[in-house]
Amino acid sequence: MKTIGIGLIGTGYMGKCHALAWTGVAATFGETLRPRLVHLAEVNADLAHTKATEFGFARSSGDWRALIADPEVDVVSVTTPNAFHADMAIAALQAGKHVWCEKPMATALADAARMRETARASGRIAVLGYNYIQNPTVRQIEALIAGGAIGTVNHIRIEMDEDFMADAEAPFNWKNEAASGYGALDDFAVHPLSLMTRFLSLPSEVLADMSRPVASRPLADGSRRAVETHDIANVLLRFPGGASGVLTANRAAWGRKGRIFVQIFGSAGTLHFDQERGNEFNLYLAKGDPATQGFRTVLLGPQHAPYDRFIPAPGHGLGFNDLKVIEAHELIRALNGDADARVIDFETGLAIEGCVHAMAKSHADGRWTPTGA
Amino acid sequence: MKTIGIGLIGTGYMGKCHALAWTGVAATFGETLRPRLVHLAEVNADLAHTKATEFGFARSSGDWRALIADPEVDVVSVTTPNAFHADMAIAALQAGKHVWCEKPMATALADAARMRETARASGRIAVLGYNYIQNPTVRQIEALIAGGAIGTVNHIRIEMDEDFMADAEAPFNWKNEAASGYGALDDFAVHPLSLMTRFLSLPSEVLADMSRPVASRPLADGSRRAVETHDIANVLLRFPGGASGVLTANRAAWGRKGRIFVQIFGSAGTLHFDQERGNEFNLYLAKGDPATQGFRTVLLGPQHAPYDRFIPAPGHGLGFNDLKVIEAHELIRALNGDADARVIDFETGLAIEGCVHAMAKSHADGRWTPTGA
Amino acid sequence: MKTIGIGLIGTGYMGKCHALAWTGVAATFGETLRPRLVHLAEVNADLAHTKATEFGFARSSGDWRALIADPEVDVVSVTTPNAFHADMAIAALQAGKHVWCEKPMATALADAARMRETARASGRIAVLGYNYIQNPTVRQIEALIAGGAIGTVNHIRIEMDEDFMADAEAPFNWKNEAASGYGALDDFAVHPLSLMTRFLSLPSEVLADMSRPVASRPLADGSRRAVETHDIANVLLRFPGGASGVLTANRAAWGRKGRIFVQIFGSAGTLHFDQERGNEFNLYLAKGDPATQGFRTVLLGPQHAPYDRFIPAPGHGLGFNDLKVIEAHELIRALNGDADARVIDFETGLAIEGCVHAMAKSHADGRWTPTGA
Amino acid sequence: MKTIGIGLIGTGYMGKCHALAWTGVAATFGETLRPRLVHLAEVNADLAHTKATEFGFARSSGDWRALIADPEVDVVSVTTPNAFHADMAIAALQAGKHVWCEKPMATALADAARMRETARASGRIAVLGYNYIQNPTVRQIEALIAGGAIGTVNHIRIEMDEDFMADAEAPFNWKNEAASGYGALDDFAVHPLSLMTRFLSLPSEVLADMSRPVASRPLADGSRRAVETHDIANVLLRFPGGASGVLTANRAAWGRKGRIFVQIFGSAGTLHFDQERGNEFNLYLAKGDPATQGFRTVLLGPQHAPYDRFIPAPGHGLGFNDLKVIEAHELIRALNGDADARVIDFETGLAIEGCVHAMAKSHADGRWTPTGA
Repeated sequence: MKTIGIGLIGTGYMGKCHALAWTGVAATFGETLRPRLVHLAEVNADLAHTKATEFGFARSSGDWRALIADPEVDVVSVTTPNAFHADMAIAALQAGKHVWCEKPMATALADAARMRETARASGRIAVLGYNYIQNPTVRQIEALIAGGAIGTVNHIRIEMDEDFMADAEAPFNWKNEAASGYGALDDFAVHPLSLMTRFLSLPSEVLADMSRPVASRPLADGSRRAVETHDIANVLLRFPGGASGVLTANRAAWGRKGRIFVQIFGSAGTLHFDQERGNEFNLYLAKGDPATQGFRTVLLGPQHAPYDRFIPAPGHGLGFNDLKVIEAHELIRALNGDADARVIDFETGLAIEGCVHAMAKSHADGRWTPTGA
Repeated sequence: MKTIGIGLIGTGYMGKCHALAWTGVAATFGETLRPRLVHLAEVNADLAHTKATEFGFARSSGDWRALIADPEVDVVSVTTPNAFHADMAIAALQAGKHVWCEKPMATALADAARMRETARASGRIAVLGYNYIQNPTVRQIEALIAGGAIGTVNHIRIEMDEDFMADAEAPFNWKNEAASGYGALDDFAVHPLSLMTRFLSLPSEVLADMSRPVASRPLADGSRRAVETHDIANVLLRFPGGASGVLTANRAAWGRKGRIFVQIFGSAGTLHFDQERGNEFNLYLAKGDPATQGFRTVLLGPQHAPYDRFIPAPGHGLGFNDLKVIEAHELIRALNGDADARVIDFETGLAIEGCVHAMAKSHADGRWTPTGA
Repeated sequence: MKTIGIGLIGTGYMGKCHALAWTGVAATFGETLRPRLVHLAEVNADLAHTKATEFGFARSSGDWRALIADPEVDVVSVTTPNAFHADMAIAALQAGKHVWCEKPMATALADAARMRETARASGRIAVLGYNYIQNPTVRQIEALIAGGAIGTVNHIRIEMDEDFMADAEAPFNWKNEAASGYGALDDFAVHPLSLMTRFLSLPSEVLADMSRPVASRPLADGSRRAVETHDIANVLLRFPGGASGVLTANRAAWGRKGRIFVQIFGSAGTLHFDQERGNEFNLYLAKGDPATQGFRTVLLGPQHAPYDRFIPAPGHGLGFNDLKVIEAHELIRALNGDADARVIDFETGLAIEGCVHAMAKSHADGRWTPTGA
Repeated sequence: MKTIGIGLIGTGYMGKCHALAWTGVAATFGETLRPRLVHLAEVNADLAHTKATEFGFARSSGDWRALIADPEVDVVSVTTPNAFHADMAIAALQAGKHVWCEKPMATALADAARMRETARASGRIAVLGYNYIQNPTVRQIEALIAGGAIGTVNHIRIEMDEDFMADAEAPFNWKNEAASGYGALDDFAVHPLSLMTRFLSLPSEVLADMSRPVASRPLADGSRRAVETHDIANVLLRFPGGASGVLTANRAAWGRKGRIFVQIFGSAGTLHFDQERGNEFNLYLAKGDPATQGFRTVLLGPQHAPYDRFIPAPGHGLGFNDLKVIEAHELIRALNGDADARVIDFETGLAIEGCVHAMAKSHADGRWTPTGA
C-alpha cells in the first residue's frame, strides 16, 4: 500500500478535525493511498509536541516553515486563522506540496486571487475545506437534481443561522470590528454558496441588505461600543438560467445552532433539508396518486454513498466529523488523479468568495451587482 | 338578546365560509349580539335561492343592490371577486351598512383609497377578512412579543408558499395575464403583511425581485403563451426601528399547500410557526440551564384564548373555518364599540396594499422603495 | 328541502359541540335533510333557556322527558354524563326517536347491552359519538389499507395520552374512586378501539396491565387518600388473523394533550398519524427507488373527502369540531337509509365496550382473556 | 504517554467500528493511555493481513488464539458472531487480558453466566459493546432524571424497530430458524434494556407476546418454509418501584431504520427521544407559564459532555461511530480505575440477558414472569 505524508498546521478544532480525518480515512475507505502522519506545526512548540502525540504525528515543530520544508510531507493541511491561509498555502504550493486549506481562502479577495494563481502555476492539488458538500444527503440531492427528479430548478432558498452572536451583553470582540470583515456574510455565506455550486450554480447577480441586531456591546470598562459588522445578511439572488433565490445568514439567531436550511423548488418537485438534522432530507414529487403525495423524509442509509463505508445499517447516522473523513477521501481521490473527485478547488473557491464580496458591494450601493460567476 | 341583520354577497368558498361564521359565532361565543341571516345575494338568482336555503338565509336575490337596499340588513359580507369589492363596499357604506369585505380591498390602489375614504366618512365599521391574524397561535405570539418574552424583535422572515400554479402544463389562465396584477405578490403578500402589523409593523422600505418559474403555458390550440405575471416574489424589508426582514411568496412551490412559515428573531429569543401546522408554535427562550434550552413546541389549548370557546381540552385543534368564526366575533366586538377588537380596518388594509404596490415598483426600479407606512 | 327535528339533551361541551354540528352541517354539506333545532333540555331550566337562545333552539325544558315527548323531535342528541346515557337513549328509542349518544354507552356492560337490545327492537337509527373515526385522515388511511397500499396489516400500536391527571398535587376527585370505573381504560380505550374497527378489527384476546402513577392525592383536610383507579393501562392485543398489537393509555402523561398516536405495520408499508397533528398522516411504501424511500407526510386536502366540503384549498386544516359536523352528516346519511354511512352503531359500540371490560378482567387475572369480538 | 496494546478479533462491521474507535479515541479525548494497535485476528489469514494494514494494526493472524497469546496485547476486542463470544472472552480473561466484547454475551444464558464467572475470577475489566448508552443524549437524559427534572419516573415505553426482515419475499435464512433464538427479542431487546439500566432499572417482572408478521419465506427450490422465529415482540414490564412499562421490538417494520423511540414519563415532566434523530431529545417540564409549556427539542452541543470533545460548536451532530469512540474512552477510564466509568460490565450484561430469557418464557407460559433483576 502506497502512503502519503501528511503535514498539519494548526491544532485548534479544525486541526483536530483534519487529524481525525487523516487518521480514520484509510480504515473507513480502505484507501490504497494510506496517509502517514508526518509533521504537525503549531506556533507554540510545546503544544505542538503534545498534540502531535495525541493526534499521532511523528514529529512536531513550532515553525510552520519547517513543516513545509519537510521532504516527507506531501500534503499540507492549513487550519490556522484565515489571515494566515494565503502565506501558508502559497508557500506550500511553491514547495511542491499539495494543499488542503480551510475556507475561506483569505480575508482579502486579492489574496485569494494570488492563491488561485499559485495553485494554477504549481500543478498541485489545492482544495478548500468545504465539508458540507460531502454530506451524503447533499450528494443524493445533487444526484436527484441531475437526474431530473424535480425537473428544472427554478428557485432556491438557503438560510444559515447560528446564535453565537445573539447575546447582546456578550463583550465587544474582534468580530464586531469593521476590520474583521462584513460579519455574517463572510462567516456564513460561503457555505450556502458552496452548496449552490453543487445544486445549481453560483448566482450571477446579487442584491444584499445587512443589518445589526445588536447595536452596541459592553467594553471592559463598563461603557459600550457600537458594533461595526453586520450579524445579519439578507440577499436576493439571480441565477444564470433565470432562477431566483434568497440567501439569509444570521449569526445572532437565538436557538439556531447549526441550521443550514435549504429549499430547492423545481418544475416537478421540491427538495429540502436542514443541516441540524443532516442525516435526512425531504423530497416531494408531483406525481402519482394525489391522495398520497407528500414530502417524504428520507433517512440516510447504505444506498446513499458513501454512508455504507461508515455503517452497513440504514438510519444510524453520520456525524459532522465524518464529513471531514469523506472530504479527506475525496482529496485522496484527487491526488490519485480522479477527475470527478468532489472537491472545491481554489478556482471555484475564488468564485465563491467573489460572490461574497459582490454581496457586500451590492449592500453599499443598494443595487443589483454582478458576481462575475 | 339583541340581533343584527346579516347580508351576504357571494356564494363561493368565501361566501360559505362567512355563512358558517355567522351561523356558528353565537353558539361558540355566547354572543349578546346574535346574527340573523337576512339576505343572500348572488348574480345567479336560482343559485342564490338554493344557497340561501343551505346556508339558512331568510331571503335571496340575484341583485346585490337589492340586498344593500334591504332595511333589515345591518352588516354586509362582501365575498365576490376582488374587482367588485370597491363598488359593493362603497355602496353598502353609503347606505349606512357596516361592511366585512374579503381582502384584498381592490385591484387598483386608487379604488382601495376610495374605499378607505368612504369608510372614514361613513362612520360605519369597515373591516377586511384577514383571518390568519385570528389564529390563537398568532394572538399568543403577539402577546409574547408585547410582553417582551423574546426581547426586541430585530429580524423577521415570512415565507408563503402554495403549489396551485406549479404545474407548468396547466393551461394558460387569467392569473397569468398582466392584467390580473403582479402574480404571487398580490395573491399572497397581503397575508404576511397582515401578520407583520401584529408582530412588529409594516416595513418602511422594500426591495423586491420577482421571477417566473413557468415561462409559458399551453393554450387550447396547442400553442404556448408566455406567462406575464410572476409566480415568485422575493422581498427584502426594512422596518422603522432598524429591524430587517425577508418576505418570499411562491405560488408554484410543489408540495407546499398552505405554508406560511414565520420566523421572528429577538434579542432574548426566537418564535416560529407554520400555518400548515397552525395549532402549534415554537418558542426558544435564551435563559435557564443551557443543557435544556431548545425550541419548545406549544400546542394550542384553552389557555390560548379564544381556543377555550371552541374546545375545553387542549391539543384537540382548531380548523381554518374556525378562524373565520373568531373573525366574526371580533367584528361583533367592533360593532359593540369595543376599541380593542382585533380587526384590520380599511385604514390598515390600505397601508398593507400600499406596501404591495411599493414592492412591485421596487422590482421595476431595482432599488429600495418607501412604502409610506 | 325536507327537515328533521333535533332535540339536544345536555349543554356542556359535548352539548355545544352537537349544537354546532347540527347548525353547520347543512351549510357545509348542502344537506337534503336539513336539521331544525327544535328542543333543548338541561336539568337547570334557566340555563336551558339561555343555551337554547345561544345555540338557536326553538324551545327549551328542564326535563329531558319533555323533550323526548316532543312530537317535533325526530333525533335526540344525548350528551349528558355517562351514567344517564342508558335511561335517556332507551326512552328516546322507545318513543320512536333516532338517537345520537355520546360514548361510552354506559358505565356497566349490562346497561350497554340493554341499549343495544332496545335499539335492535326499535328499528331506529342509534349511533354513538365516535368522532375520531370521522377525520378525513382516518378515512384515507382506511381506504389505503382496504386498497392494499401497505399489504396485509400484521401489527398495530395505538397510544392515547393526555395529562389532565398528571399533577399529583391536584385534589382527590371522583375519577380517583373505584366507583368511577377502571381509570384510563374507560376514559380512553374506546377511542383506539373505535379506530381499530376501521383499520383492522377489534382484538379477539387481550392482556392488560394497569398502574398508578399517582399513589395518593390530597383531601381538603390536608390528609391524603390513596388513588383507587389506574391512570395508566398497557394492553397486549391479538387479532383474529394473527396480527399483534399494543394499546397504551395514560391520562397522567405530562405534555401530551390530545395524543392518539397510531402505527399500522403491513407487509408492504407502514402508516402512522397523531391526532395532535390530525391534518396529516405518514405513509411509507416499500417500493420504488430505495434512495428516495421514506415516510411521506401527507397534508389533508380536497382529495381527502370530505375535506373539500369545508375548504377547497389543501393544507388549510380542519379542527376537532369539524369532525362532529362530519359525524352529523354521516348520521343524516344513515337516516336517509345510506347503508355505508360511517357510523358506530350500538352493536359495534357494545363490542367495543366488551373489549374494555375484558381488558380489566385480564389485568385482574394476569392472563389472556377473550373479548368476544 | 503510556500506551495500551490492542488486539481485535473480527473484521466485519463491528471490527471496523472498534478499529475506528481505537484509532480515534486518543485524538478525540487526549487520552493519557494511548491505544497501540498491536494484533488483528480473523479466520481468513489473508483478509486479516489486508485489514490490519487498512486499520493500522502492526500484525495479524488467522488464529485468534495467537492473538490472545500475544504478550503485547492488553485488551481484546471481540467482534465475531455471537456464538464465538464466550470461548474468546473466557480465553482472553484467563490469559489475563481485559475484554471488550460485543453484545449479546452469548446465545445461551449458561454461557453468559460462565463469562460472568470468569470475569469475576479474573479481576480484569470485562465490558460489553452497548454503544447506545454512550450517546450524550442518553447521558443528558440520565442526568436530568437523576437530578429530579421530571420528578419520579412512573412509566416508560421503548420501541425498537427496523425493517431488515420486512420483505416477505426475501429468502428464508438462518435468522428464521428456531435454532437462531427467539427473533426480535434477542436481536433487539438488549438495547432498550441497556437504556433502562441507565434511566430507571431493569424490570422485575415481564409478560411478552411474540408474533410472526411473515408466516413463511421462499426457499431456493421455489417452495416455502414456515418462519420459526418471531419478528415482533411486545412486552409488558413492571419495575421494582411500581412503575410500568412497555417494550416493543419489530424487525419487520417497514420504514423504520434505526428507530429506538424512548418515552419516559415522570411526576413532573416527560422526556423522549428517537435514535434515528439521535442528536436531539425532547423535554416537557410541568412548570412555568401554561401558555408557553411544550416539549422543547434540545439539540446536542458542547454543554452535553462529551460532545465538546468532538466539536466545539453546538448543533453540528455526532454520528453512530462516534458513540463507539466514547465507549472506547469509557473503557479506558475503567482501565485507569475510574469507578464511575459508564460501561456495562459482564455482571449487568448477564442481568440484561436474563430479562430477555424471562420474556421468552413469559410468552410461552402466558403469564407474568420474574426476571431475577
